[in-house]
Amino acid sequence: MVETDDMISSKASIDAFHKGAFYLKQPKESGHRAGIDAMLLASLVPENTVGRLADLGAGAGAAGLAVAYRSEINVTLFETSSIMVEYARHSLRLGQNSKFAQRCNVIEADVELSGQARVTAGFEDNAFDHVIMNPPFNEAGDRKAPDALKAQAHAMSGDDLFDKWIKTAAAISKPQGQLSLIARPSSLQKILTACEGRFGGIEITSVLPSQDENAIRILLTGIKGSKARLEMRPCLVMHSDEDGTRRYTAIADDLINGRAFLHRS
Amino acid sequence: MVETDDMISSKASIDAFHKGAFYLKQPKESGHRAGIDAMLLASLVPENTVGRLADLGAGAGAAGLAVAYRSEINVTLFETSSIMVEYARHSLRLGQNSKFAQRCNVIEADVELSGQARVTAGFEDNAFDHVIMNPPFNEAGDRKAPDALKAQAHAMSGDDLFDKWIKTAAAISKPQGQLSLIARPSSLQKILTACEGRFGGIEITSVLPSQDENAIRILLTGIKGSKARLEMRPCLVMHSDEDGTRRYTAIADDLINGRAFLHRS
Repeated sequence: MVETDDMISSKASIDAFHKGAFYLKQPKESGHRAGIDAMLLASLVPENTVGRLADLGAGAGAAGLAVAYRSEINVTLFETSSIMVEYARHSLRLGQNSKFAQRCNVIEADVELSGQARVTAGFEDNAFDHVIMNPPFNEAGDRKAPDALKAQAHAMSGDDLFDKWIKTAAAISKPQGQLSLIARPSSLQKILTACEGRFGGIEITSVLPSQDENAIRILLTGIKGSKARLEMRPCLVMHSDEDGTRRYTAIADDLINGRAFLHRS
Repeated sequence: MVETDDMISSKASIDAFHKGAFYLKQPKESGHRAGIDAMLLASLVPENTVGRLADLGAGAGAAGLAVAYRSEINVTLFETSSIMVEYARHSLRLGQNSKFAQRCNVIEADVELSGQARVTAGFEDNAFDHVIMNPPFNEAGDRKAPDALKAQAHAMSGDDLFDKWIKTAAAISKPQGQLSLIARPSSLQKILTACEGRFGGIEITSVLPSQDENAIRILLTGIKGSKARLEMRPCLVMHSDEDGTRRYTAIADDLINGRAFLHRS
């Protein structure tokens, strides 16, 4: 079934990000809604970067647009769900995004393609200075995704998901290009194995809900072809409990609102 | 060359650990001197543990003895350097260690043995509740170890060191036995790969010199046969700078002096 513009509009919301610096049209009650993860992912890309960025599995485009509006970079959103591709294209037509939308484009394509099929689908070899990704996940023990569109966004396509996604990332990265990703801690070994021989100089930041809790996410960057050693960065603590109220820490609030960046060391 | 007791005595110091709870005879100017790493490693073993513990590559025995004195556990120190084995045996003969020394023994054997040779050398299969290790390291870019004995303690025996050490650890662990290790962050991928199919429920703690610096060590535990997901624990920050003076944080001071433990979550 192909959704029409009207169908999308009635089910969609337009949400402001970074205090109104850019807007996203996205599914209201179904599909994968962008949020904190996408903003943390964007914070891994330096603020005034140039060249070209690829957002793999972009969804409605939140992470890619969060980089586009505050830099001169050209952004390509790759997304395999035609419905989410429509949302991303709607977002780029919004008047609020006109200042940077002409530097963004959307390609409907499957990140897991390889070889000539991947190139034909629009993934140019050695073309991007930055590749960012928030790959889908759905592990045993997670709550079940309540609808089919969300399931597609969250589903692990198999044990080799990270190998396929990071293989594509390496193929389309320029030499010395930066990979940035956000994932669950439980995926760490698969990610490191997939990076081997492709991205080095790996830097890992654990994202903790509060200072005494285990990480719920890891943020990871690497440089194509680098031989530098793996580094573990200081943990990022998202909330503090003061006076019995849980609030974002200052750094978390700055990162998710585009006022700070997690630079590589 | 076999060193005699007199030769060892003239080159050795007797050092107090945990505010005098146990003592260690170790090389004064050469060889691998035990310190903070061994004490952090010991802190991964719960305080009132029982059964049997193996310390692989024990050196003079610091980590193993740091567990022995404060529990009822039986400790076996495995060490391949005959000189370090002598130091460990000296330590166990010290009057200051008499309260727990009868629960400790030292076996001169190479952790990297496998199959029947490993069993013959004294590594009993499925025998230990805890296996702890601080494997040697010496990577390109490190300062060169200034003497041969230290070089032996620090030398990477090859790319497959972690595979060999963790293979031995899995062989000698009881089902549900706990592996605890301290290593450099740059070894993370090799460690995780070596744990695959052997130890699960991996928990990783990054050890930071101060809250804004990258980790210099990782502490890692795993459970033999566990299928639990990998967890990233909150970082351990070793020092704080107050009034321009760098001091141990309260938790670091407690951990290295045996007053606190890094429990699994």
